[in-house]
Amino acid sequence: LTEPFVTVHRVRFDEVDAAGIVYFARFFSWCHDALEAMLEGIEGGYRGLVNGRRLGLPAVHVEADYVAPLRFGDAVRIAATVERIGTSSIAVRFDLARIAPGGQPAVEVASSDAVATLRHVVVVTDLEEMRARPLPDDVRAALKPWLAPGA
Amino acid sequence: LTEPFVTVHRVRFDEVDAAGIVYFARFFSWCHDALEAMLEGIEGGYRGLVNGRRLGLPAVHVEADYVAPLRFGDAVRIAATVERIGTSSIAVRFDLARIAPGGQPAVEVASSDAVATLRHVVVVTDLEEMRARPLPDDVRAALKPWLAPGA
Amino acid sequence: LTEPFVTVHRVRFDEVDAAGIVYFARFFSWCHDALEAMLEGIEGGYRGLVNGRRLGLPAVHVEADYVAPLRFGDAVRIAATVERIGTSSIAVRFDLARIAPGGQPAVEVASSDAVATLRHVVVVTDLEEMRARPLPDDVRAALKPWLAPGA
Amino acid sequence: LTEPFVTVHRVRFDEVDAAGIVYFARFFSWCHDALEAMLEGIEGGYRGLVNGRRLGLPAVHVEADYVAPLRFGDAVRIAATVERIGTSSIAVRFDLARIAPGGQPAVEVASSDAVATLRHVVVVTDLEEMRARPLPDDVRAALKPWLAPGA
Repeated sequence: LTEPFVTVHRVRFDEVDAAGIVYFARFFSWCHDALEAMLEGIEGGYRGLVNGRRLGLPAVHVEADYVAPLRFGDAVRIAATVERIGTSSIAVRFDLARIAPGGQPAVEVASSDAVATLRHVVVVTDLEEMRARPLPDDVRAALKPWLAPGA
Repeated sequence: LTEPFVTVHRVRFDEVDAAGIVYFARFFSWCHDALEAMLEGIEGGYRGLVNGRRLGLPAVHVEADYVAPLRFGDAVRIAATVERIGTSSIAVRFDLARIAPGGQPAVEVASSDAVATLRHVVVVTDLEEMRARPLPDDVRAALKPWLAPGA
Repeated sequence: LTEPFVTVHRVRFDEVDAAGIVYFARFFSWCHDALEAMLEGIEGGYRGLVNGRRLGLPAVHVEADYVAPLRFGDAVRIAATVERIGTSSIAVRFDLARIAPGGQPAVEVASSDAVATLRHVVVVTDLEEMRARPLPDDVRAALKPWLAPGA
Repeated sequence: LTEPFVTVHRVRFDEVDAAGIVYFARFFSWCHDALEAMLEGIEGGYRGLVNGRRLGLPAVHVEADYVAPLRFGDAVRIAATVERIGTSSIAVRFDLARIAPGGQPAVEVASSDAVATLRHVVVVTDLEEMRARPLPDDVRAALKPWLAPGA
């Protein structure tokens, strides 16, 4: 079985809303950051892709299912799995779970700790012309270890 | 045919990302704001619901399909339609289109100006106990004029 | 006596922090937006300056004094006065006061409603070379009506 | 000589503005986060202070001087020094410098790498009554190692 790519986010002071829980749109930023982290291995990381090669990964579809609220200071384990690698597009699933603050990112999490599942579909895009481009080889290679079994 | 509930958002200076286009997660905030605006007619608005009655509308599912990028200063027409009113939950669709800056919110928009479609499913929630509650009558009444035909 | 340039901001759902009050850094964004609004009269507005002429107004100094907290839904009157127009730089003071939601922007405010005073010093900057440039004539003209008496 | 308290922030994808540089107000959030990190040693950290004891540290004065712009992916060294510990208030200075991505936080930085200096003055506040409170002993103890010499 393939292990997911795991990062941990600690909920910041300004990420909650007037209801006292994390504002729903913040989850998408954390998952974007996790996708960037997955690409850290390519030359210059996602930064190099955008600033250097002027290629980006704009979203064409994203979705989120929320199961439990998060509060200031909660530690969140983000487990990313690549669901599909196409010619230009990438689909990634992110399973978010609450872990004890200071908990290890690789720790097993019970399903009762699940807080949300998100999906991002992004397309490699030439940022000057805003047109789709084939997935560069190094990006494909960086994603492959996290491809879901059977995908 | 039912008219949608229409608001206009002008893309702010700090809503773009390093790719030079609006950061994908911002669209969700605009739609949240549009939903709040739809509830302006209830006593105290959404503010009164949250601060006074301690009821909120946390999202249980949201999704977005992006068609075209937006840039700083673009004016966006957000047309909201209520797709379903349940016992506790509300489903709203938001059709976003670029309009000329200074354009009238009620103006007809061509399909070629479409930038994104979003869907929010939210649940009326007691913020103290974080449990679902039946939709209050005034909230239901505020949403009804924007219910999609046949819904 | 010169009237200030007045805008109104309604505190959004996601502008508070885990302490339940508006996050201190948000005030700066509102004042930036007010400065943009002051420049609405130039050709294309601030948007045209940045996107078209590739001139921006990066801050070199900002400061804020906070007097009273704000909460979700509060309406804030932002009264901007230009304190100094230099060769390349502009200094603007912003006096923020809480007004009744739905209150008129031009309404008189009691000193007891004061919430904060901010100051922004910005420099007209060529965004390609990141170098200071003389204030364009139309920018100077747009600011002049709001210049503090004796400045 | 006292060492400052050092943290490192990597500029995120959505922290830039339409001018292509980090939005000026973001710097304040990073410094707030650094102040939280300085309090990590107290029972439950800043989170425990806010969620448990219902004490917060609202700002009464903040300021920033910007020297050089930052871009997406830049690594920033934040060196915090406590300038003053009063009965209820704390004054902290933050010196920000650009370091090589992946650079060590403790690394020496040349003055030519300076990007900004910020100052935060915050007041220990009872969040229920929004009134100043004396600095708790554990907060005072956590700050003391970072007190500027001669302060």
